[in-house]
Amino acid sequence: MALITMKFGGTSVADIERIRHVASLVKREVERGNQVAVVVSAMAGETNKLVAWTNDAARNANNLALPDQREYDVVVAAGEQVTAGLLAITLNAMGIKARSWLGWQIPIQTSAVHGSARIEGVPASDMKTAIENGEVAVVAGFQGVAPGTRISTLGRGGSDTSAVAVAAGLGAARCDIYTDVDGVYTTDPRIVPKARRLDKIAYEEMLEMASLGAKVLQTRSVEIAMLHRVPTRVLSTFTPDVGGTLLCDEEDIVEKKPVTGIAYSRDEAKITLVRVPDRPGIASAIFGPLADAGINVDMIVQNVSEDGATTDLTFTCTRGELARALAAIQTHAKDIKYQDLIQDAAVAKVSIIGIGMRAHPGVASTMFRTLSEKGINIQVISTSEIKVSVLIAEEYVELAVRALHSAYELDAA
Amino acid sequence: MALITMKFGGTSVADIERIRHVASLVKREVERGNQVAVVVSAMAGETNKLVAWTNDAARNANNLALPDQREYDVVVAAGEQVTAGLLAITLNAMGIKARSWLGWQIPIQTSAVHGSARIEGVPASDMKTAIENGEVAVVAGFQGVAPGTRISTLGRGGSDTSAVAVAAGLGAARCDIYTDVDGVYTTDPRIVPKARRLDKIAYEEMLEMASLGAKVLQTRSVEIAMLHRVPTRVLSTFTPDVGGTLLCDEEDIVEKKPVTGIAYSRDEAKITLVRVPDRPGIASAIFGPLADAGINVDMIVQNVSEDGATTDLTFTCTRGELARALAAIQTHAKDIKYQDLIQDAAVAKVSIIGIGMRAHPGVASTMFRTLSEKGINIQVISTSEIKVSVLIAEEYVELAVRALHSAYELDAA
Repeated sequence: MALITMKFGGTSVADIERIRHVASLVKREVERGNQVAVVVSAMAGETNKLVAWTNDAARNANNLALPDQREYDVVVAAGEQVTAGLLAITLNAMGIKARSWLGWQIPIQTSAVHGSARIEGVPASDMKTAIENGEVAVVAGFQGVAPGTRISTLGRGGSDTSAVAVAAGLGAARCDIYTDVDGVYTTDPRIVPKARRLDKIAYEEMLEMASLGAKVLQTRSVEIAMLHRVPTRVLSTFTPDVGGTLLCDEEDIVEKKPVTGIAYSRDEAKITLVRVPDRPGIASAIFGPLADAGINVDMIVQNVSEDGATTDLTFTCTRGELARALAAIQTHAKDIKYQDLIQDAAVAKVSIIGIGMRAHPGVASTMFRTLSEKGINIQVISTSEIKVSVLIAEEYVELAVRALHSAYELDAA
Repeated sequence: MALITMKFGGTSVADIERIRHVASLVKREVERGNQVAVVVSAMAGETNKLVAWTNDAARNANNLALPDQREYDVVVAAGEQVTAGLLAITLNAMGIKARSWLGWQIPIQTSAVHGSARIEGVPASDMKTAIENGEVAVVAGFQGVAPGTRISTLGRGGSDTSAVAVAAGLGAARCDIYTDVDGVYTTDPRIVPKARRLDKIAYEEMLEMASLGAKVLQTRSVEIAMLHRVPTRVLSTFTPDVGGTLLCDEEDIVEKKPVTGIAYSRDEAKITLVRVPDRPGIASAIFGPLADAGINVDMIVQNVSEDGATTDLTFTCTRGELARALAAIQTHAKDIKYQDLIQDAAVAKVSIIGIGMRAHPGVASTMFRTLSEKGINIQVISTSEIKVSVLIAEEYVELAVRALHSAYELDAA
């Protein structure tokens, strides 16, 4: 007997018929002798409807574009509350004792950053007692409670994070993330039909994959899984018995290829400041205002100074933040003293990820050569111990990903 | 400056446009210098949708007809949560500081009878402090928290009760119930076009009106208003400046007519047990099993024994309980020993209500004479200090109500 956590996303609970299917998967685990906590998202479409209402309520009343974030959370959290109650009803009607747990009831303690709160603790002893007494715990995902008693939400995709955090809080043996794909792939199968499902992936690799554009799991959920060493599986709601990918420790992976997967992100924009003075403090003159404006600057490259007095500086951010980044720079133009500013939102980031990279020299050069052979110009490079990312023109994304997938011998036979 | 409570039902908050109208009414009170707690129902249609989901979830999974009541409450309470958040967003966007309060946050303490919980206390000191600090409190109606931390709901129409209980808990100067009619009428205007709106009605009269079929306020809300002497007004969301009816103490009503209003209910069924033994203990042999089955027996009449050995006994219950009442009786047929059982669901109850009745003898006889003149047979009579109810064939309801309305001089000029 083991305590396991299962998580089902919006498409898996889109209507009562699908909720019944989810209940049957939960029932199967109970009949195997497992204790179960099951985390659910809102029914597909419900969150969008609720979000639209909050925007309508804020926008039309005045010119304000954003609803009060604390009240946004109150409205949006209702979506998961409904699903949790419905699944508990379904389970009880099937003869499986179950009760719903809302974020504030567990409690899932979060920061006070409403709309994208961070889970800070899950002291789930009451819920654990209920589970040990033979009751399935049905947890409303995506929500928590901020200091005090206000409802908080974790931001889009937050139910993955809820699931892993609940698994950690309960000391669960495993966290199964049921989704609409049957695992983590070497890259996006829509771009590379020869992409292969990975049986296992190291937490560190998955974290990079998620951060760098793979959409299968939310970054924060992988962080928590890694931090608490929660064995986490990604598997399909609709074909739960085939495939699946296990997130695990590096040591549990026998065959370590140099590159495990290839991620890409089109949500990139590039800003180049031409001929800024090459003097101490220039970086902080630029990135200080950007940080103050809440811009997440990603890649940064500063050219070698050619004339000894000025240099070009390039950085990237998400496309959604581009306008705000430009405004922040232009507001501080006097301090920065750049000669020209070039923006480009038609760029994309392609990354190779693999813990095997540490042991295999020459992995990056294979990447650069492969792209060069396809005539793809690399605009910016960023590396860490287990990944190499390059910024390229967006139009080359598919070509680059396919070429790299072959070059690192990831193609399925 | 006064602390007032306002309550808006489902049709008043049916969409964002109407929520904005509600916000404008709240704003008007704030601009008059009042402190405001506003209680809202779910958007019209939402509760029905949620209830249908709970029934689907329970019914199809198995043959059980009823969803788990605690989980039903979790699902259904989401409706008011959404409205409360949306109204708070709207108010904030209009520049009125506001926050939502859910049942468990206030808390609205209720019994553990999920689905139709009873409010037991509203220790609203946190909310009162927030209101005194200049914030409008937007309260999710219809919901509370049962002992422990489970969400409870008050049953249909419960938001009226929430509003009055919140007004009592806050020590509010007034509770304004905004609805789709502009007040309490002498009788149902759909039946009697000459029905008149009452400027004032005594709590006791309103309680009888609500209990006896008038649908404008929920009975429990009137009980709480009466118990805590909360001056409660019924007025129209759409024409808030005209009309309205104030619930108040008897002493505050100057002109006391013998009859204030006429109520009727079609939700009545009659059971007659023919020739039951006329012996001590027979009533408990009949009504014990009915009480055990949770049947609310309303009117009871026992005929004088003609043969000295047997008698006929008639009682009424709601139509929804008729089948269960018959089953309870038939299960105990051996103990009761009736000769025959006659049921009739085509009956209705018509009642005259008025505190003036105490001072005016002959009020009941006017009722009986009036009905007799119209050829309407009275099947059962039940009286209290301030009302007389009669059971008649359902087909005569409109005729009876109109005749009585004229007989007691209630017709508008």
